[in-house]
Amino acid sequence: MAKEIKKWETLETRYIIKRPWLTARVDKVMLPNGVVNPEHYVLEYPDWVNVIAITSKGEFVMVQQYRHAFDQVMIELCAGMCENDETPLQSAQRELLEETGFGRGRWSKLMTIGQNPSICNNITHCFLATDVERVDCQHLDESEDINVLLMTRDEVYAMLQNDEMLQALMAAPLWRYFAQYERKTE
Amino acid sequence: MAKEIKKWETLETRYIIKRPWLTARVDKVMLPNGVVNPEHYVLEYPDWVNVIAITSKGEFVMVQQYRHAFDQVMIELCAGMCENDETPLQSAQRELLEETGFGRGRWSKLMTIGQNPSICNNITHCFLATDVERVDCQHLDESEDINVLLMTRDEVYAMLQNDEMLQALMAAPLWRYFAQYERKTE
Repeated sequence: MAKEIKKWETLETRYIIKRPWLTARVDKVMLPNGVVNPEHYVLEYPDWVNVIAITSKGEFVMVQQYRHAFDQVMIELCAGMCENDETPLQSAQRELLEETGFGRGRWSKLMTIGQNPSICNNITHCFLATDVERVDCQHLDESEDINVLLMTRDEVYAMLQNDEMLQALMAAPLWRYFAQYERKTE
Repeated sequence: MAKEIKKWETLETRYIIKRPWLTARVDKVMLPNGVVNPEHYVLEYPDWVNVIAITSKGEFVMVQQYRHAFDQVMIELCAGMCENDETPLQSAQRELLEETGFGRGRWSKLMTIGQNPSICNNITHCFLATDVERVDCQHLDESEDINVLLMTRDEVYAMLQNDEMLQALMAAPLWRYFAQYERKTE
């Protein structure tokens, strides 16, 4: 019988930065064996959303934008942040409309996922939206520079196979979609 | 024809913290439209590895440990950090041996993935190892408190379906495994 894994005890906590795009704290923690780690960093973020949006013709609504930490222009799912007054579904629908101009359709929750449960405290709500339609133009912030791309399922699947969908929070729901919702993947 | 998405220009960069477990910088960046964002944070990490390790009997070698940012004891894949003098494969084999005592087997690269290409600069190398065997006991650091669990594929699949594998860097390769390598998932 495996031993019971116990939680750590937080002895002290201190914020090292609190800015809109980065909130980080350092916790002094004690492990069950009495070992003290004076520096366990936790990054605090609001919850996030993303969506696999597919039109009635089977086109995947993807976004192309520059991703600074990788210094690359990348194709991704539409994604964003939950605002305080929204449900995750409302956030995902708002982000899809703002970033792509697509809306309507049938929405369901696909999965819940975390960036890194050891060091990041937020979760990402992943949705599947089928039969979405173009209902408006994009409404971007001045800091957003986003192309909307309509891709076939074969193009999206090839991206996954070729490790071109590098963002784990998007690769996970896409692989889940292909594993569970669509069986003709070869 | 979609417009070309261009890279941002980094005008200034400054490290706000450089510690073994958190290195963060803030970049002042200019977008192609001339808009300046004075604060784009980038988290710098070494590359990471994880492994789907399966015995000849089809048991998945999983690890259970406390994850502080979520304040939960969780079941995950064996994972760790690339040391400077190692290839990613060597790192993954070392981590599996240290954390679980399992080794040998047939190893292949399953996928490459990123935490978040916008704000985290590192990649995670995901491996698949089949026919692994218990070859040693665990060799844990004093800061590690890890149970080794052998789970059936149905137990692992149920975890995925129930959103109990919350770590995106692990859910993505596991869903890929079930989508591509094993077709009898229903």
